[in-house]
Amino acid sequence: MAVISLTTDFGSGDHEAGVLQGVIWSIASGAHIVDLTHEIPPQSILEAALLLWRVSPYFPDGAIHVAVVDPGVGTARRALAGQFGTQYFVGPDNGLISLILKRAEDNNEPVSIVQLDQRKFWLSEVSNVFHGRDIFAPVAGYLAAGTPLNKLGTPIHDPVRIELPTPKLIEGGWEGQVIHIDHFGNLATNLDINHLKRSKEVVIEIKGVEIDGVVSTFGDRPVGSLIALLDSSGSLAISVVNGSAALNLHAAVGDKFEVHFNK
Amino acid sequence: MAVISLTTDFGSGDHEAGVLQGVIWSIASGAHIVDLTHEIPPQSILEAALLLWRVSPYFPDGAIHVAVVDPGVGTARRALAGQFGTQYFVGPDNGLISLILKRAEDNNEPVSIVQLDQRKFWLSEVSNVFHGRDIFAPVAGYLAAGTPLNKLGTPIHDPVRIELPTPKLIEGGWEGQVIHIDHFGNLATNLDINHLKRSKEVVIEIKGVEIDGVVSTFGDRPVGSLIALLDSSGSLAISVVNGSAALNLHAAVGDKFEVHFNK
Amino acid sequence: MAVISLTTDFGSGDHEAGVLQGVIWSIASGAHIVDLTHEIPPQSILEAALLLWRVSPYFPDGAIHVAVVDPGVGTARRALAGQFGTQYFVGPDNGLISLILKRAEDNNEPVSIVQLDQRKFWLSEVSNVFHGRDIFAPVAGYLAAGTPLNKLGTPIHDPVRIELPTPKLIEGGWEGQVIHIDHFGNLATNLDINHLKRSKEVVIEIKGVEIDGVVSTFGDRPVGSLIALLDSSGSLAISVVNGSAALNLHAAVGDKFEVHFNK
Repeated sequence: MAVISLTTDFGSGDHEAGVLQGVIWSIASGAHIVDLTHEIPPQSILEAALLLWRVSPYFPDGAIHVAVVDPGVGTARRALAGQFGTQYFVGPDNGLISLILKRAEDNNEPVSIVQLDQRKFWLSEVSNVFHGRDIFAPVAGYLAAGTPLNKLGTPIHDPVRIELPTPKLIEGGWEGQVIHIDHFGNLATNLDINHLKRSKEVVIEIKGVEIDGVVSTFGDRPVGSLIALLDSSGSLAISVVNGSAALNLHAAVGDKFEVHFNK
Repeated sequence: MAVISLTTDFGSGDHEAGVLQGVIWSIASGAHIVDLTHEIPPQSILEAALLLWRVSPYFPDGAIHVAVVDPGVGTARRALAGQFGTQYFVGPDNGLISLILKRAEDNNEPVSIVQLDQRKFWLSEVSNVFHGRDIFAPVAGYLAAGTPLNKLGTPIHDPVRIELPTPKLIEGGWEGQVIHIDHFGNLATNLDINHLKRSKEVVIEIKGVEIDGVVSTFGDRPVGSLIALLDSSGSLAISVVNGSAALNLHAAVGDKFEVHFNK
Repeated sequence: MAVISLTTDFGSGDHEAGVLQGVIWSIASGAHIVDLTHEIPPQSILEAALLLWRVSPYFPDGAIHVAVVDPGVGTARRALAGQFGTQYFVGPDNGLISLILKRAEDNNEPVSIVQLDQRKFWLSEVSNVFHGRDIFAPVAGYLAAGTPLNKLGTPIHDPVRIELPTPKLIEGGWEGQVIHIDHFGNLATNLDINHLKRSKEVVIEIKGVEIDGVVSTFGDRPVGSLIALLDSSGSLAISVVNGSAALNLHAAVGDKFEVHFNK
């Protein structure tokens, strides 16, 4: 039976997240549903896009990812469903799919996107303020129950795309940016293993502090050390062993830093 | 297989919420269980009652809602299970069912309530402090596994009822109250579409600020605007576009405001 | 179908918790998975061990508990799976199993522990920083799908053990410690019903305040009262009725207190 994931900025204290599950089960009664998170920072489409990109490789074929970070709900913004490789997405057309779409294209995997316009797959009443409940959850339910993607809407080829900030080549290295701060205070960045191909013998300068080299894991340095390492998605991350780099460095998403290759 | 929802004030950081699922699965092994929320403000029966009222229309027939906000646990307060229309409730008799009961009565749907007094459907040891685990979860499990409601206890007709504050008719309009503040800082109120039948051309006065008219959705006004709109449950809500009305207005549950119809 | 529980310090706002479910479902597609909590304080192995000890008696036979509080990830620390009575554990060898292991031994239940060393049950790529995803989740999936424990690794008999602080016998009573503070601000302690066998007519001294006697439940005293009672796990707890003992007493994990038997 289908697996459906939910990613929203609804928070975990209100009724919205649970309603999505009720609607899905009303249509696809045996679906296994997982809350990836309901704690995306309000309206942070890019952070949700990044999460989907990180999570989807670990989900089974046929998984359906519903993402509702939707500041444009009830306006002219389109509603989408799409197939990217072996998995599916349902949500607003505001860039949430950007990173999983790009990966599917880069890997020459099948891509198919429809604009949702078949109201028979929606709830009978559609509010102006909660398309997660009224459109996206029922569409995900019908997909899970076997309705083919092409019945749900009309093909489109121009979905909204947003991009992670691009690393900048500087003399002797790279200028990167912090793109996400996790629960532990680790700083995820827009540099990855490809930017370190020349060498991991680097000096990283962030907020006036220098970090020497890229270590393999947290336990390679004493508790409290500021370190750089490749995180579980292959991105360069800046961390404090058993502590919080965000607190130590007073760092925020968008902060810039430099990587200098040793001569 | 049955769908069971959980609503508590246990928080998400402790063992209590997960224990409910373990107990239910020990009795009804295939049940699909959803955490609606474990973040009801401690002992806030009315907020849990409101959440159940908002959520239940979107759950499938036969869904069982377990709610444990239970400051009277271990005292003489009764334990209940009930059927309201096509769905079920299990929890303490302290008003949690008030709003779903009233709706079922208003709609002439079947209503049936029993006081839980059949110990064979409880855990063998019943603590004084955690009836969620020892009584409500196992009873929900047996309901899910097919035990009829009338085997679980003795019919009663006088469950505890609590009420939302009633809107007050004032000259040229209504005085309402804030009844819930969500994750985004939207203010839900005790006014709804029925109070705006005369017109949506209103001026709303809250905390010394005036809002002109009721808009359809967030995107109708620029980011940062203070707006009034009908939320996804049909209640009048006060919001800031991509912001927090609660922070902007320093608003709290219980705050009063006025709606004045334009001449 | 198997029941799998997840306990981590990943938080609920990032991708890590959801990835575990995706990996498990990729191997054991019908598994029922419950998030016990992802809010263990970062690196707090003892609090996770305590939660597993409290939760596991209420799970069905065959349940698999995956716990990932893993400051030593990627170092020489071993990875484990074990059977304790009728249930299973998968996670790092750092003490997480200490309390469920001790209980199984005390009850003469079957105990069997293997060091995970069979890479065919892991993801094909294993990072240095996320064994939850790359080792523990897939191993749990294979266990759920029917792979016997002894195929997953090599038996060991010296798992890392940690201990709760031991209560100290003092003149006329006991010195105990606060070992956990829950969402409501209740203080759980390392004393339990066994330490109160002589009498529940005691005076408890904590942070310069005295509490007279142990009550049965919260409703036995007026709102706002500071009370002592036996919590749902049988531990002595210190609470404020409908309030927070942690806030009232400025209490923290590790705080000591004394119990004096009345003459």
